[in-house]
Amino acid sequence: MGAGISGVLQGWNGESEGAVLYQTVSELYPICRSITGNGLRKSLKSLNRFVPLSLHEVPTGTQVFDWTVPKEWNVQDAYIKNSKGERVVDFNKSSLHVVNYSVPVRQKLGLGELRKHIFTLPQTPDWIPYRTSYYQESWGFCLSQRQSESLADGEYEVCIDSTLEPGHLTYGEFVLPGESEADVLISCHSCHPSLCNDNLSGMTVAARLAQILSTTPRRYSYRFLWIPGTIGAITWLALNESAAGRIKHGLVLSCVGDPGKFTYKRSRRGNAEIDRVVEHALRSAGRDYELLDFSPYGYDERQYCSPGVNLPVGCFMRTPNGKYRQYHTSADNLDLVTAPALAESLQRLLSIIDVLERNHRYVNLNPKCEPQLGRRGLYRQMGGTSSTSSEEALLWILNMSDGTHSLLDIAERSKLDFAKLADTAEMLVANQLLRRTEK
Amino acid sequence: MGAGISGVLQGWNGESEGAVLYQTVSELYPICRSITGNGLRKSLKSLNRFVPLSLHEVPTGTQVFDWTVPKEWNVQDAYIKNSKGERVVDFNKSSLHVVNYSVPVRQKLGLGELRKHIFTLPQTPDWIPYRTSYYQESWGFCLSQRQSESLADGEYEVCIDSTLEPGHLTYGEFVLPGESEADVLISCHSCHPSLCNDNLSGMTVAARLAQILSTTPRRYSYRFLWIPGTIGAITWLALNESAAGRIKHGLVLSCVGDPGKFTYKRSRRGNAEIDRVVEHALRSAGRDYELLDFSPYGYDERQYCSPGVNLPVGCFMRTPNGKYRQYHTSADNLDLVTAPALAESLQRLLSIIDVLERNHRYVNLNPKCEPQLGRRGLYRQMGGTSSTSSEEALLWILNMSDGTHSLLDIAERSKLDFAKLADTAEMLVANQLLRRTEK
Amino acid sequence: MGAGISGVLQGWNGESEGAVLYQTVSELYPICRSITGNGLRKSLKSLNRFVPLSLHEVPTGTQVFDWTVPKEWNVQDAYIKNSKGERVVDFNKSSLHVVNYSVPVRQKLGLGELRKHIFTLPQTPDWIPYRTSYYQESWGFCLSQRQSESLADGEYEVCIDSTLEPGHLTYGEFVLPGESEADVLISCHSCHPSLCNDNLSGMTVAARLAQILSTTPRRYSYRFLWIPGTIGAITWLALNESAAGRIKHGLVLSCVGDPGKFTYKRSRRGNAEIDRVVEHALRSAGRDYELLDFSPYGYDERQYCSPGVNLPVGCFMRTPNGKYRQYHTSADNLDLVTAPALAESLQRLLSIIDVLERNHRYVNLNPKCEPQLGRRGLYRQMGGTSSTSSEEALLWILNMSDGTHSLLDIAERSKLDFAKLADTAEMLVANQLLRRTEK
Repeated sequence: MGAGISGVLQGWNGESEGAVLYQTVSELYPICRSITGNGLRKSLKSLNRFVPLSLHEVPTGTQVFDWTVPKEWNVQDAYIKNSKGERVVDFNKSSLHVVNYSVPVRQKLGLGELRKHIFTLPQTPDWIPYRTSYYQESWGFCLSQRQSESLADGEYEVCIDSTLEPGHLTYGEFVLPGESEADVLISCHSCHPSLCNDNLSGMTVAARLAQILSTTPRRYSYRFLWIPGTIGAITWLALNESAAGRIKHGLVLSCVGDPGKFTYKRSRRGNAEIDRVVEHALRSAGRDYELLDFSPYGYDERQYCSPGVNLPVGCFMRTPNGKYRQYHTSADNLDLVTAPALAESLQRLLSIIDVLERNHRYVNLNPKCEPQLGRRGLYRQMGGTSSTSSEEALLWILNMSDGTHSLLDIAERSKLDFAKLADTAEMLVANQLLRRTEK
Repeated sequence: MGAGISGVLQGWNGESEGAVLYQTVSELYPICRSITGNGLRKSLKSLNRFVPLSLHEVPTGTQVFDWTVPKEWNVQDAYIKNSKGERVVDFNKSSLHVVNYSVPVRQKLGLGELRKHIFTLPQTPDWIPYRTSYYQESWGFCLSQRQSESLADGEYEVCIDSTLEPGHLTYGEFVLPGESEADVLISCHSCHPSLCNDNLSGMTVAARLAQILSTTPRRYSYRFLWIPGTIGAITWLALNESAAGRIKHGLVLSCVGDPGKFTYKRSRRGNAEIDRVVEHALRSAGRDYELLDFSPYGYDERQYCSPGVNLPVGCFMRTPNGKYRQYHTSADNLDLVTAPALAESLQRLLSIIDVLERNHRYVNLNPKCEPQLGRRGLYRQMGGTSSTSSEEALLWILNMSDGTHSLLDIAERSKLDFAKLADTAEMLVANQLLRRTEK
Repeated sequence: MGAGISGVLQGWNGESEGAVLYQTVSELYPICRSITGNGLRKSLKSLNRFVPLSLHEVPTGTQVFDWTVPKEWNVQDAYIKNSKGERVVDFNKSSLHVVNYSVPVRQKLGLGELRKHIFTLPQTPDWIPYRTSYYQESWGFCLSQRQSESLADGEYEVCIDSTLEPGHLTYGEFVLPGESEADVLISCHSCHPSLCNDNLSGMTVAARLAQILSTTPRRYSYRFLWIPGTIGAITWLALNESAAGRIKHGLVLSCVGDPGKFTYKRSRRGNAEIDRVVEHALRSAGRDYELLDFSPYGYDERQYCSPGVNLPVGCFMRTPNGKYRQYHTSADNLDLVTAPALAESLQRLLSIIDVLERNHRYVNLNPKCEPQLGRRGLYRQMGGTSSTSSEEALLWILNMSDGTHSLLDIAERSKLDFAKLADTAEMLVANQLLRRTEK
């Protein structure tokens, strides 16, 4: 078990992993995604290069808990032309230029009227903001402050060649069966247009993670979801209550492509096994990291951790949403995410899953006093010298394995390396001194 | 609920409140109070200016748990005259001059003999000490060190024109009924003679608090007690075991008139709701304060928190008993207490009670995923921008309201303002998204 | 109860105690002890000067849990002679020169071959290491690095005149009955040859402790064990499961003769009463000390705290095993241990046992409000003055004695001296205000 993941990590080639991930992000970058529509479909299909994910189509109007699946939105073209007929704002240059879910519009209007539909970021005058209006029908354009200031008085022609009609909400799903019925959920939102860290990094790393796990033995089943934020998680939870009930551990992935330190936001439960496993793996990696307590805003952990669902799902990030200047702007681009950062995020996720997979409880079959390890060749024969770390691992496992302590408990109490403890436990099982137990 | 208290606090006039409180303390200051007697009666009647409190009279000899209500003590006059017939010590100048509960005495004696009955404070030579001898019959005079030193050799005439006879122990009580059967106890000792911070400040603030609460809607009933210290609390508890059983929260008030920072001494339970509410209100006020763990000496929390009673009653003070130099001396006078300090104490108590009154538990009626707040006009329509604190309050309440968390729990976890959360919760109730639940 | 121990501590003569202990260590120092054999027997018999301990003999081959009692080892003589017939290594000079449990050997061999059987400590070239080979038959010599380097090329005659034959494992036991059936275990290993701190200090202090306790009243029974490390503890536990079940508190003693600060290693349970008692006694002593969490290597707490035994047994030391340079070398000698250190260790153990013996739970017989202490002469009659520490002890005990708090709980919460609380509690019992309760 998990030996496969250990093997992957031992043979880790960060450079080639990073290149594949960055290349995928680059290809998906120009597409105009939304919570529905063809951009979303095209992006999800593109992830087929990693694993054969299924696309699910949920019709407009479907009731999902307190919500209704909205109309499908698609946009072909959009622009603002000046009086000379020149495109001064062009959707083809950035999918962010159109307020997401804008209704169709084609009209001429003066600059004063036009400005009511223009959004900018005065503080960062070269960046285009990201804006949406999913549930209130309206239209608008997002411009850099400089673009906006350069608009001269006069008449403009605006065109948003969009459709907002009954259709479907699309999401991607991929399930890897494991030995047990318990599921690990990996979920990432896939609804943002040309934003790299905030959606493409998570989508891509999740897909490559799925591909790697498909090659290793698995204790748990793994369920990967690529879904539109909020409405997608609500839709999946509403339509899959039985599958949701099998989720034993879960992670939302987002913002895993920037070079910042890792950040883990705990599940609502706060001390779920996934929370402890991630903390252990981050600490063991020996690099700076940050732990945040749960709060009910952020990504889809909002839904997974709502009080009537309350799944043990945390959020794995590098720099969190709202904590980097480029967040929700055109500067969340291919310069913000880097190949090494993407590769390291994937590597850390594998090390987390390695701990999760191997975090068993064991029972010492010889619980009264220590067994005689020496005659089994498991202990130095020459006495008087000090104990080795291998012997310490043996003794800690034998001492703590009364059925109530997991290997992670033992790792935390002994301060010994989890992987060494896990290998030692399996060696003791092979020597009939220990057996695995389920909680 | 509680809107009334919020309203009082919004229209707070510290100057006029302080003036009324200080004026009352001034009027009560000269009276010679004790654990029984006419000075106590007169003081309690004087509080009728705020609320119509009832005076209870418990006969001498009544058995109250391990104690017996003592004889009633009254004193008309007391003095020490020198050989020239001049009053060198005069009870009319300070009620502290007589050891409280001194038996009647009228005799002539030399300075040496007299000194056996004189108590002074050599460290603070201008201050008169406060001394009592309730349960051992004796007599004595308390003098400043300077007064004592100025006594020349010669014969003196001492007179304590007191009576110590069967009578009654008097206490004051005022009950404000509320919606629920549960009571909040506000208790203050009223047995000290001319001491301002140590008894008059609490007595007066409690009376004005009762008056204000009589004008606001009340979830809880409020029971105010003005009682002689120790024997009064024991008497009340012994004769009111059923009423005591309804006390859900309680505060002993004392030393609330000096300008020192607020001090709260926790109940014996240590984590009772009142303990958490007071701590929250003090922290929210943004000024320095101190929290003390329970100890079995101090004021009547000693009795309320005895092991067979164990009520959730803490002690609310500014500078605690024994922690200011003037404690139990004639310097605990009208210079030590100030109008602004009295007013601020009252204000802080109101903010404590405001939290207590509004600290409900709620249940999210839509617990699976977030409800769609946008279509109810409760959430910004334009996406991509960051959340507001109002939205955060909404989301925290919805997320945590599973019936196990109170608003105070949510305030502590979210670090959001309690009042904002309380208002938001009621707004969600009005929108049918939440309902109140009783524990 | 315990008054006897308090009395012993009040009349403490550290100088004479230290002299007796150091003298005993000195006499036992040259003897070649092992996990079996005559050196062990002789050492245990020598402790008869303190108490009449019983020697138990367990035959070779006896099955004890996963282990088998080994053959008995005895050694009469051992040496390495050079080609001139001179003894260049001589067992008579240090029992450490022979690898413990070496099989008999008598042969001539060249230096190269000889070196395969020689062990040294190159880092500390004047010290002889301590080595054993209990469970793998082999032979060897331990030399200082300088001795080893001085060996010239040539032929050597080696002789180990030992026997390794069926016989017995010997251990010493001494039981002092007390009022209750519950036992306190004091266990020390006695199997190391010429090592002073690591075995002789514990053996000697334990024996004198037993002697002192035999003169005092005892709430608990005390069971003292002098046993070979590991196999001795396993043997005792395997053959005395019923007696083991009566052990309510226990300490392993080792390394109590060096001048370092005290170190206490907690039991596996971590918060057992013995853990809290030792911590309290060490803190109260006002000198630096260290607390360690349990780990499954060290002394026989390894066996007592194995998961199927899990007794509340900690390990009381000064400088722990492996934490001083002289550990397991010839430098753990009569220069390392000192008479004052031995005496202070004994003194601290007595203060620990004093707390353990007196750590009762009490019930306040008058739990509703405070009892009237004044009429019983237990409280100052003059009011207005501040409370004394004696009164505080009274009030804390009365307040906390609801049957759930032990005196140690009260001492920790009140920060009052344990002995003062214990004396006060007995005084309250004498006044019919309190009674002792068993948990």
